[in-house]
Amino acid sequence: MPNISQKGQNMPQSPIRKLVPYAEAAIREGRTIYQLNIGQPDIKTPQGALDAIKNNSIEVLSYSHSAGFLSYREKLAEYYKKHDIPVSSDDIIITTGGSEALNFTMGSITDPGDEIIIPEPFYANYNAFAETSGVNIVPIQASFEDNFALPPISEFENLITDRTKAILLCNPGNPTGYLYTKDEIQQIADLALKHDIFVVADEVYREFAYDGVTHHSIMSIAGLEEHAIMVDSVSKRYSMCGARIGCLVSKNKEVTAAAMKFAQARLSPPTFAQIASEAALDTPQEYFDDVNKEYTLRRNILIEGLEKIKGVKVAKPKGAFYCIAELPVENAEDFAKWLLENFQHNNETVMVAPAAGFYSTPNTGLNQVRIAYVLKRENLERSIAILEEALKKYNK
Amino acid sequence: MPNISQKGQNMPQSPIRKLVPYAEAAIREGRTIYQLNIGQPDIKTPQGALDAIKNNSIEVLSYSHSAGFLSYREKLAEYYKKHDIPVSSDDIIITTGGSEALNFTMGSITDPGDEIIIPEPFYANYNAFAETSGVNIVPIQASFEDNFALPPISEFENLITDRTKAILLCNPGNPTGYLYTKDEIQQIADLALKHDIFVVADEVYREFAYDGVTHHSIMSIAGLEEHAIMVDSVSKRYSMCGARIGCLVSKNKEVTAAAMKFAQARLSPPTFAQIASEAALDTPQEYFDDVNKEYTLRRNILIEGLEKIKGVKVAKPKGAFYCIAELPVENAEDFAKWLLENFQHNNETVMVAPAAGFYSTPNTGLNQVRIAYVLKRENLERSIAILEEALKKYNK
Ligand SMILES: Cc1ncc(COP(=O)(O)O)c(C=O)c1O
Ligand SMILES: Cc1ncc(COP(=O)(O)O)c(C=O)c1O
Repeated sequence: MPNISQKGQNMPQSPIRKLVPYAEAAIREGRTIYQLNIGQPDIKTPQGALDAIKNNSIEVLSYSHSAGFLSYREKLAEYYKKHDIPVSSDDIIITTGGSEALNFTMGSITDPGDEIIIPEPFYANYNAFAETSGVNIVPIQASFEDNFALPPISEFENLITDRTKAILLCNPGNPTGYLYTKDEIQQIADLALKHDIFVVADEVYREFAYDGVTHHSIMSIAGLEEHAIMVDSVSKRYSMCGARIGCLVSKNKEVTAAAMKFAQARLSPPTFAQIASEAALDTPQEYFDDVNKEYTLRRNILIEGLEKIKGVKVAKPKGAFYCIAELPVENAEDFAKWLLENFQHNNETVMVAPAAGFYSTPNTGLNQVRIAYVLKRENLERSIAILEEALKKYNK
Repeated sequence: MPNISQKGQNMPQSPIRKLVPYAEAAIREGRTIYQLNIGQPDIKTPQGALDAIKNNSIEVLSYSHSAGFLSYREKLAEYYKKHDIPVSSDDIIITTGGSEALNFTMGSITDPGDEIIIPEPFYANYNAFAETSGVNIVPIQASFEDNFALPPISEFENLITDRTKAILLCNPGNPTGYLYTKDEIQQIADLALKHDIFVVADEVYREFAYDGVTHHSIMSIAGLEEHAIMVDSVSKRYSMCGARIGCLVSKNKEVTAAAMKFAQARLSPPTFAQIASEAALDTPQEYFDDVNKEYTLRRNILIEGLEKIKGVKVAKPKGAFYCIAELPVENAEDFAKWLLENFQHNNETVMVAPAAGFYSTPNTGLNQVRIAYVLKRENLERSIAILEEALKKYNK
């Protein structure tokens, strides 16, 4: 039998995948599982986007431009301008999800052996995209006690080598929920300029900023034009994860030219989904206000509920829809497995994501879990009650 | 300014892209261009697929399974069984186009520096996928005079080194239109078994086989189960290029497990397009019969027309919808550019793809072009007349 590649063997699996077989077994046994482990919102997709699909008049479903419909890119540029991001359609490449934008970015700015510095914990699939390109991720630990604020800039600087190609920030953060301040973004920008490296900002959760705090985009920083690359997506913004539309945005022409070569090789992003995404740009502000209100309520229920459980600590999220909690257990992965394999309360249980998989440094965050607040409020309340019961029983 | 990657610099561009600026200029000048250069069929997408999209009742457009809908994979397995390809839903990973299946295949079976042997001329984007994975393509020249039949198997064997991971065949071929015989496929299979390497078969044009000749899939060869990987797509089969749905098929569990890790990292293939693709499987045989008849007529018009032009020779295609023609010019790229920049006949011109870009060996196929017969018959006839006029004028 021929051997698969080292790369294929080494490709890391997302930490939320490992538990899936246990969850499937629990479901087969007839137990209900509250899924706090994944970032799949239950929010309705804007009607305008869905209607655009139903009303399409396509007869020959052809390839689109490799950078995506020009009409969509132009409208998207308008949208960004309103959000203080001065870009034109030329600076935008429509991708198959933010995922593909991350892959194109890695391919365009790194060669095997290059390094990217990322504050941890971070979105676990960065590991897979890095492995695909042969890139080494250099983690820098953010602190739970500081709610995962930006680590001191000197720590970043200490890690820069001649192989460092970029600093990657997820803002707001998955899994941390941390929203970087303008000052933090500026510090990173200054460092990138000083060492002439890229800043990649994954801003797919940009709309999800709570308590009236503003999101600051990497693309709004004057002077950083040649160094900034933004990754964006419609997945979370419009609860359109299944569309598979995102984009790579940069004013650096060499970057977009390189990324376009990757884009042309795969021909085009999906056509139906572009139609929906273009229409989604007309979603009334009301929709976002409602969604924001709903997530704020959910977050508050979750945080307050968790903090009432003995031994549980929470890093307070200001954005996205995740939070990291410390549990009074030694190994959160064992506990998460146990929740699926051995626990039920009125025939229900919860599924959480062990946080260690979001850290690149081994044996870190072992007692932490990531909880997504993408469920209805009553289900969140019920989930917290189940978790409380479970912890009592587990620690006996 | 920070540097982009070597990879980003080296990413080859498709040979059909280079001429696009000249075509755009011609269109701006008001000239009509018959596009013989691209594989975008004008055939109507099956109504059932389009209706399925219009009738969808999605309210939350969520991620699908990373391997694609189970229902779709099961139905696809049935389809393959009817085509003498004995696979189950477990052997299938739904991808974002055949393009992504090719990328996943490269990532799963090769590491940087590994080699893949491919008969040339070949689909130019293989170069880009190889560059993405750091793979070296080892070309083996197929002969124009033999209509690009499989080169002698001894030539393949001579090129096998300890870095060779696979032989890649495109069947039927883009750009050659060649359809491999059962015996040719068997020879490749035997060689792969002897040297324990993979055979990757790009069968995205499987349905497009003319003159009653049968297509032989790599997946139908008994004994090759662990070595065979098939890449497929709905793009051409149902004229659904914009859907962006393809698949990777293999009975080798290590291969599908590795490919699944790439699939999970990018989350899922597009949901709307999967709905359309699943519905497309119910397309009546009549549709394919009509399409086949239409392409046969087009091919015949093209071949006969081209052969009547003085100095033009054609390699006869038995499948897909491309052919390679030798023109009485020294450099077909210069001629193709001239067609766009300097020629018009009743304010019309044609766009062809210079074939050199489909060869990996430098300075090969310089007087050849690839012509796609994806236009209506009357437009093909007109295109041939234009080409004849143009050659007369060019050679004066
Ligand atoms: C931080 C972050 N970046 C990127 C993505 C990729 O999302 P998509 O490919 O659906 O746009 C996700 C999805 O969960 C994410 O959480
Ligand atoms: C030989 C061959 N393979 C693969 C592809 C990729 O097609 P898609 O990604 O649309 O499935 C094409 C498209 O033209 C092709 O000609």
